[in-house]
Amino acid sequence: MNKRVYNFSAGPAILPEAVLEEAAAEMLNYQNTGMSVMEMSHRSKAYETIIEEAEADLRKLLNVPINYKILFLQGGGTTQFAMVPMNLMKNRVADYIITGHWAKKAYDEALIYGTANIIASSKDKMFSYIPDVSNLNITENADYVHMCENNTIYGTKFWTIPNVKDKVLVNDMSSCFLSEPFDVSKYGLIYAGAQKNVGPAGTVIVIIREDLITEDVLPATPTMLKYKIHADNASMYNTPPTYGIYLCGKVFKWLISLGGLEAIQKINIAKANLLYDYIDQSSLFKGTVEKNSRSLMNVCFKTGNEEIDNQFLKEAKSAGFDNLKGHRSVGGMRASIYNAMPVAGVEALVSFMKDFEAKRSG
Amino acid sequence: MNKRVYNFSAGPAILPEAVLEEAAAEMLNYQNTGMSVMEMSHRSKAYETIIEEAEADLRKLLNVPINYKILFLQGGGTTQFAMVPMNLMKNRVADYIITGHWAKKAYDEALIYGTANIIASSKDKMFSYIPDVSNLNITENADYVHMCENNTIYGTKFWTIPNVKDKVLVNDMSSCFLSEPFDVSKYGLIYAGAQKNVGPAGTVIVIIREDLITEDVLPATPTMLKYKIHADNASMYNTPPTYGIYLCGKVFKWLISLGGLEAIQKINIAKANLLYDYIDQSSLFKGTVEKNSRSLMNVCFKTGNEEIDNQFLKEAKSAGFDNLKGHRSVGGMRASIYNAMPVAGVEALVSFMKDFEAKRSG
Repeated sequence: MNKRVYNFSAGPAILPEAVLEEAAAEMLNYQNTGMSVMEMSHRSKAYETIIEEAEADLRKLLNVPINYKILFLQGGGTTQFAMVPMNLMKNRVADYIITGHWAKKAYDEALIYGTANIIASSKDKMFSYIPDVSNLNITENADYVHMCENNTIYGTKFWTIPNVKDKVLVNDMSSCFLSEPFDVSKYGLIYAGAQKNVGPAGTVIVIIREDLITEDVLPATPTMLKYKIHADNASMYNTPPTYGIYLCGKVFKWLISLGGLEAIQKINIAKANLLYDYIDQSSLFKGTVEKNSRSLMNVCFKTGNEEIDNQFLKEAKSAGFDNLKGHRSVGGMRASIYNAMPVAGVEALVSFMKDFEAKRSG
Repeated sequence: MNKRVYNFSAGPAILPEAVLEEAAAEMLNYQNTGMSVMEMSHRSKAYETIIEEAEADLRKLLNVPINYKILFLQGGGTTQFAMVPMNLMKNRVADYIITGHWAKKAYDEALIYGTANIIASSKDKMFSYIPDVSNLNITENADYVHMCENNTIYGTKFWTIPNVKDKVLVNDMSSCFLSEPFDVSKYGLIYAGAQKNVGPAGTVIVIIREDLITEDVLPATPTMLKYKIHADNASMYNTPPTYGIYLCGKVFKWLISLGGLEAIQKINIAKANLLYDYIDQSSLFKGTVEKNSRSLMNVCFKTGNEEIDNQFLKEAKSAGFDNLKGHRSVGGMRASIYNAMPVAGVEALVSFMKDFEAKRSG
């Protein structure tokens, strides 16, 4: 096989082909510097331009207010599960909304540092929906409320922002970051592992309101886990993941060239509709998620028969549709259709599903 | 300029051209998988092979004993400054040998967690030598002794292993890792940021003796900062820096193809001798480090006249020798000649230095 497959991996995930082509072309000599971006000192002028442009482009894409800092860190969302309480839990109390595996992991980590309250959950129906968050029972002295907007494993997404009254809202946006415009000012802190929708694994993006960046962190907080140290040093306190940030920057430029987040949102809605519309009228495939909670990024479906699921997965892989297997806790199939998945990939998948269904009923 | 420069950066630093060429060629389609390594699920068979081979090759290069684990982590050496005490400081006491900026940073971080004692230091002479470590005054209940073998900024290196009696020796090898063979069993824990001698920034390699991997960590240790969680999950507790590990793996294979660490050691000694021998007989350039403490990787020198240093740096850059400026705390010049720097690069630099000297004396 000499061509690229349609890669529906949940993450690390597909990247825009144009970005990969540029990266390949620049691998040995970036813009006549005579070296790869990987080989550059992070303190060099060439690299400073790369990271500053990445930040400026992200700021532009999201209209990030001036009182928010953008940080490019390491350790993934999982390190944020600890950094959030270590930096924000002044009263040692926080509220968590549990809508899946990763939200639960964030909650478990918070328990190391204080009292974490579950104020809403969809565990009762295997996380197949987003609970009502219009009138949450917020804990009076909670330092923040934590949510995970898009649940990669279960294929759900919040379509309304939780009503957290005057509390700081922290949002793990790893698997929907930059899939559509959103209002940064609704959140105190946003984080997103790059490896879903932005770049390679090993970079996590944090957008944090300046008043939440303080020296007043929990005892025993490692220096590397203080937002303040990274904010004060413009993500250069230690050597940042330079190549990952360079690729994120290329993805930001690619999004801007497409017309920004309004443009990619239209494309993402169109892609998701192609799949959901077909699934909703199919007599073979069924969606696994309540309709009003469906993710734009991770489309979960199954036939209800494990043997047929496996046959489908096998034939799909042979036909060039890779990584469609659902997470073991849900089973069935999951098509992750992040920004970089072209419409043609989803059209081809729907067409393949139709053929598969027709063959079976024919 | 269309060709590659000789890049003497202290880190992130030069990588083998053959490795970059392979990475570029595989960028859009790794071994007929139809995707980039960056786009692969870390749980996929293709990626599991990559990380398993990287570990096996590193084990082979260093003859890592079977009772040591190899971990590929994030957060750089700076995160290790906290992980080491959080995981090893059972008595809340540790001894530190201070031979430069990074050793001092490791010590400062340890002070967050307990009593850290400076048992040897070369601060009195601006870290221009390695102190006598043959008879250290080890603290009786110290949990470990920490050293930094090669001091990137000052250009020094330990040529004998500190006599730490029965204590656990922890070695930050970031800027000399894999530059020569060494006996892993002399250390309890070794760590190395990849961005000096192994790969891109964003991956740190930890080699740790199994008996030091315990659940018994300091209170408030984040899950991501426990060696045990990463050891139990073969560096896959969360999404690892997949692309960085892939490149480290390529560098390991490149080293094996050269003949392993004995072979690269010979080359590194030859490169360092080319520079030091010329400097020692030069009447313009002087080495800044005591001869018996000289680094094989970071060669520091100056003329003693800042104006001439700057003229040299300017002319050198024009001639294709980049990143020769010394760290601001030392001044002058620093040629970082890591594994990937070819002998031809050092020969060309020495020849350029000779011409520069001849011009000034002629």
